[in-house]
Amino acid sequence: MSGSSFGTIFRVTTWGESHGPGIGVVIDGCPAGLSLCEEDIQKYLDRRKPGQSKYTTRRTESDTVEILSGVFEGKTTGTPISLLVRNQDQRSRDYGNIAVLFRPGHADYPFTEKYGFRDYRGGGRSSGRETIGRVAAGAVASLLLKELGITVLAYTKAIGSFSISPADYRMSEIYENSLYMPNNAVAEQAGEYISSLMSETDSCGGIIECIAKGLPVGLGEPVFDKLDALLAQAVMSVGAVKGVEIGDGFAAASSVGSKNNDAFRRGGNGDTDRSICKMTNHSGGTLGGMSDGADLILRAAIKPTSSIAKIQQTVDIHGENADITVHGRHDPVIVPRAVVVVESMTAITLTDLLLRNMSSKLDHVRKVYSGQ
Amino acid sequence: MSGSSFGTIFRVTTWGESHGPGIGVVIDGCPAGLSLCEEDIQKYLDRRKPGQSKYTTRRTESDTVEILSGVFEGKTTGTPISLLVRNQDQRSRDYGNIAVLFRPGHADYPFTEKYGFRDYRGGGRSSGRETIGRVAAGAVASLLLKELGITVLAYTKAIGSFSISPADYRMSEIYENSLYMPNNAVAEQAGEYISSLMSETDSCGGIIECIAKGLPVGLGEPVFDKLDALLAQAVMSVGAVKGVEIGDGFAAASSVGSKNNDAFRRGGNGDTDRSICKMTNHSGGTLGGMSDGADLILRAAIKPTSSIAKIQQTVDIHGENADITVHGRHDPVIVPRAVVVVESMTAITLTDLLLRNMSSKLDHVRKVYSGQ
Amino acid sequence: MSGSSFGTIFRVTTWGESHGPGIGVVIDGCPAGLSLCEEDIQKYLDRRKPGQSKYTTRRTESDTVEILSGVFEGKTTGTPISLLVRNQDQRSRDYGNIAVLFRPGHADYPFTEKYGFRDYRGGGRSSGRETIGRVAAGAVASLLLKELGITVLAYTKAIGSFSISPADYRMSEIYENSLYMPNNAVAEQAGEYISSLMSETDSCGGIIECIAKGLPVGLGEPVFDKLDALLAQAVMSVGAVKGVEIGDGFAAASSVGSKNNDAFRRGGNGDTDRSICKMTNHSGGTLGGMSDGADLILRAAIKPTSSIAKIQQTVDIHGENADITVHGRHDPVIVPRAVVVVESMTAITLTDLLLRNMSSKLDHVRKVYSGQ
Amino acid sequence: MSGSSFGTIFRVTTWGESHGPGIGVVIDGCPAGLSLCEEDIQKYLDRRKPGQSKYTTRRTESDTVEILSGVFEGKTTGTPISLLVRNQDQRSRDYGNIAVLFRPGHADYPFTEKYGFRDYRGGGRSSGRETIGRVAAGAVASLLLKELGITVLAYTKAIGSFSISPADYRMSEIYENSLYMPNNAVAEQAGEYISSLMSETDSCGGIIECIAKGLPVGLGEPVFDKLDALLAQAVMSVGAVKGVEIGDGFAAASSVGSKNNDAFRRGGNGDTDRSICKMTNHSGGTLGGMSDGADLILRAAIKPTSSIAKIQQTVDIHGENADITVHGRHDPVIVPRAVVVVESMTAITLTDLLLRNMSSKLDHVRKVYSGQ
Repeated sequence: MSGSSFGTIFRVTTWGESHGPGIGVVIDGCPAGLSLCEEDIQKYLDRRKPGQSKYTTRRTESDTVEILSGVFEGKTTGTPISLLVRNQDQRSRDYGNIAVLFRPGHADYPFTEKYGFRDYRGGGRSSGRETIGRVAAGAVASLLLKELGITVLAYTKAIGSFSISPADYRMSEIYENSLYMPNNAVAEQAGEYISSLMSETDSCGGIIECIAKGLPVGLGEPVFDKLDALLAQAVMSVGAVKGVEIGDGFAAASSVGSKNNDAFRRGGNGDTDRSICKMTNHSGGTLGGMSDGADLILRAAIKPTSSIAKIQQTVDIHGENADITVHGRHDPVIVPRAVVVVESMTAITLTDLLLRNMSSKLDHVRKVYSGQ
Repeated sequence: MSGSSFGTIFRVTTWGESHGPGIGVVIDGCPAGLSLCEEDIQKYLDRRKPGQSKYTTRRTESDTVEILSGVFEGKTTGTPISLLVRNQDQRSRDYGNIAVLFRPGHADYPFTEKYGFRDYRGGGRSSGRETIGRVAAGAVASLLLKELGITVLAYTKAIGSFSISPADYRMSEIYENSLYMPNNAVAEQAGEYISSLMSETDSCGGIIECIAKGLPVGLGEPVFDKLDALLAQAVMSVGAVKGVEIGDGFAAASSVGSKNNDAFRRGGNGDTDRSICKMTNHSGGTLGGMSDGADLILRAAIKPTSSIAKIQQTVDIHGENADITVHGRHDPVIVPRAVVVVESMTAITLTDLLLRNMSSKLDHVRKVYSGQ
Repeated sequence: MSGSSFGTIFRVTTWGESHGPGIGVVIDGCPAGLSLCEEDIQKYLDRRKPGQSKYTTRRTESDTVEILSGVFEGKTTGTPISLLVRNQDQRSRDYGNIAVLFRPGHADYPFTEKYGFRDYRGGGRSSGRETIGRVAAGAVASLLLKELGITVLAYTKAIGSFSISPADYRMSEIYENSLYMPNNAVAEQAGEYISSLMSETDSCGGIIECIAKGLPVGLGEPVFDKLDALLAQAVMSVGAVKGVEIGDGFAAASSVGSKNNDAFRRGGNGDTDRSICKMTNHSGGTLGGMSDGADLILRAAIKPTSSIAKIQQTVDIHGENADITVHGRHDPVIVPRAVVVVESMTAITLTDLLLRNMSSKLDHVRKVYSGQ
Repeated sequence: MSGSSFGTIFRVTTWGESHGPGIGVVIDGCPAGLSLCEEDIQKYLDRRKPGQSKYTTRRTESDTVEILSGVFEGKTTGTPISLLVRNQDQRSRDYGNIAVLFRPGHADYPFTEKYGFRDYRGGGRSSGRETIGRVAAGAVASLLLKELGITVLAYTKAIGSFSISPADYRMSEIYENSLYMPNNAVAEQAGEYISSLMSETDSCGGIIECIAKGLPVGLGEPVFDKLDALLAQAVMSVGAVKGVEIGDGFAAASSVGSKNNDAFRRGGNGDTDRSICKMTNHSGGTLGGMSDGADLILRAAIKPTSSIAKIQQTVDIHGENADITVHGRHDPVIVPRAVVVVESMTAITLTDLLLRNMSSKLDHVRKVYSGQ
């Protein structure tokens, strides 16, 4: 496996298995001088921690983070920031029967083919616990963005077919329900739906939306490292994500140009206002792969949890047909816990592109080095 | 701008502007010994060439490719393959009024903010002509994949709301209509829809689907360079793409686990058949970010062409409000010409991951170096 | 700081400061199936451990390594291997006076300018302890190379002007003296020289040589990633290295072509021997940036230890002139402890190029994927 | 072959063979707004052009560069800059006998082993003509550095054993002799030496020194991407370079700490001068892998030209022993023509590290984005 790193300047490398000694991340390229302590990161990790509601696995993990390097007297030093979370509740006996069976919807089969064998304990590297490193790094990225007036916010737009349209968004309610939906009433209906699935030992998915505000215009590197392209990689790389869209996304495919184009107008604050804004935001904040000054809006489609206790057909590692029932402690829906993961991946991507954009023009270079 | 390269081993770097001397690509990391001539590449370029139907721009470009390096006596040598296409029909006078106005739906505004100014002739680097380099590289990638029994095929699934469901696919008809749809009858309806939009100086978008067959199991590098993640980047990096999905994609978000999981069964060719296959393919050929042996299926949502002759509101480079009418030679829908681009980006991504996967296990390493 | 990673496929990322909680490394891209346990790595770390002879710092560190991920049931799984060494003897009071003074020959001044401030405890990230991560990764690389019949060996060629010429090499004596010199008699003289310098609170440097045997022909990627180029980066990136040469190195500059060219001859084992060998090895095992089948030979020049207790002139962080005496526990010569570091960097570079070379020709690709 | 790219932000990708249609380079990541025209680049290419003195090959190539992209109205646009030089004098009949013989000192043998066969015409990708792309990119880098007050200058320090010590440097004479030596008298002696070798159909090497002035303090990214480490890779990647050293280099290995450490002192321009300078420059302008404010000084050892008309022993591609006489048009010494190549690689490395350093501290990030 290569591919455990993401980013060009702000570069994140994650490691760790579900049932090994721990999970962690190394962040290389974080600018020096950012205030950072363990509590800053812990807040983000707590948002994805298991055992917080009846809809999440009962595995109990405190997921306490330790900063191993890169911070001195409360500030980042510019050197790599190494973060460690020890695994605690490693009841690997739960996973015994899985050693010889390929779980449908899981990475077991390709993992075994690719590497010759696999760490079968709890999914190993393919476990949802892998996202701990992403979230820890996302916390650092979010702090850095905040310093520049940029905020990133993710929430659950849909659970199964219980979807909230923007007209019904009540952003203040996001943290009032355990599904992180911007509408408590819909969240309640969705919760009942999840409960009914749980009683049938089934599972569901949903849609996560993420909005970033305050971006400078021009982030994103055409051609292959467009803002939307790297966001797509970042978000699609989260396990269980099956689709990513920006702005109107798939709906744009059936629109027409005269509607889909966002008109520009100058800012309305008097004659001296020379700011430029868009009258609509079908593009979701990107044009030509760069931020366009409007809110960045993306959505990720999350598939239903693969681990279900229902009997399913499969094969064993010898290629023989078999039945499988996946017991263990699994979320009936991973959407609520994935919210902070999508938010983190968005923050990491934006941070990296923000730093990469610094050398886009000679004026920037001069600004940094003048007076030195 | 950085970000003009894609891939880790099979690494593609594109360059060129719409109205500069030419467009090109350098392919580094192509294995030696692959048969390759200019005609092989020309076939792919001809599929995206303008002026092939009434639905495409009348700009006339022969788009003739020249191999500048990396091939000796009809075979790749292992050194970088440099490919050049000269621009011919550079009627830059068409674009005169655009120098001072930001076209809605275009990269003009963020490009100017990012770099301080822009090459306003025909969109410069943001032009659709940028995809020439992608397609030329995609041709080479496709040839290499073919040597290993892997085929990649893209086509138009939908134009506006004229969409074809898999049950109605007639793959043999794809090249029989100028929209590359796998159903001539729907293509005809879609064509009439486009014609009506053309008469209103409007435009539309659509959905491209791409299928890869014959992939070995295990391609894709968890965690960040998952097969689906890199495909998402690759495809979303194509201008006008606003969404990417794999397998059931966004529909999976409203499914349930017991339906969405694909059951495994052993191959049915007698007692000795130890192959493994999936009974369904909701996952679209990926599990845990790796190929799972089933057909790889992805879809890209293409927004309506931004360049329309309708009057639109915008601002000029001084920040003053203005009206704009984008004349010039534009496609009313870019979907048909983008089909080969999506196919190319898929082929490039698969080729790179195929080469990266070679060192996944010590057995592979031994296989290559034994007897040396 | 970015730049904490090295390698393209076998990719090593180090982190950690001298006086922080610990030091570590993440190895991404190690093929699955390699036997690996903590003891394998510990052996290498013990070779650079302080306190082993009178010529090394008295700082006492057990430098015990813990494998945090990537190994399951005694074999690498293909996932990132995270290795951690906790710092123990962090007597940071030793370094108090250094907080406000820039030590001559140290990174203090540019570090402060670059990042705005620095972790002044024991050199922080610039400490020699940073090499722990390199050596731990080098141990893994060496194990992998060994599986393919490749060995890497480094030793001290010179301490100050006490240099050993190849005619006097006694390889069996390398581990018999605490300077790791391939000649005990010279080592004794060199030891006396070091002792005399210690009594003057002065320090010295030397030259490390490294030889790799058993390399397949063709490792190294022209143009920029030539075998010698990446080795030069790898070895020059070790603190205190001021020069790197391959084969005859700087001596080649005053040779002539007819002497410097190595003649080729076919192997002498009878008529059927079709192996090719070189009659001499002035090139040091590389031609055109690729391994040529002969022993790879490189040398690194190590400067004298910068930390000396002699009074030196410097400035403080406010720009005022000052005198400095660097107390603390420092090696009078770091060469012996750097031997395993140079060996490790060589092993890491070779491993990465070995894996990169796997896709050099289509035949290799077919060999890996045939039968799948 | 991968490895044809160098740099992280300012990223250079070269391509092309000696006897193919042309040679070129793509520069990605050059900031927008830099004045650039073909003549700027041509000046640098003319310095490495063949046929300029009796010591260089008589192959006649105008080596005229064409800018294919990335420049608009005389300024870089931020998009990739593609540069093309067509090959003209491709007398490939000169090389006919080389198709079946491995030239001693050349890449022929490992190239054939690595890729299965090779483009034998004039060395193909291993030809010295490959450096055209490096020099063209170096010209752009040098222009960018000049905008920030940084200059890079290379010259010939030694031809064979005719070496000039710094005390005898007369920098104004560098361009007055065809060997680019900073002392006309020594150059004359060296010229006679070369002439005598030519009459014996032999060749020689030498040492190139390169100095960069005006660097801001702190360029270079610890740990692996140290200033000296990347320079070592950059310079060692030039064909025929067998050693690289910084500052005192190999001589430092036999020095002592009290002499080798450079003392710091504050600037002497009155009480208000808070600048910091070093009293000596044994380090060659780097400390801890970062620029330290003093002149950057590096040296490269160049081996004697491998192509000589003397009879040499070799084997053919079937493994049979044979004699070889390498005719054709070869330089008896490549040092003079390699001077601008070493200068170019230095400039490229410095430019990339200058841009990478922009995000080293939060203050820089704020400086760029404030007011946006």
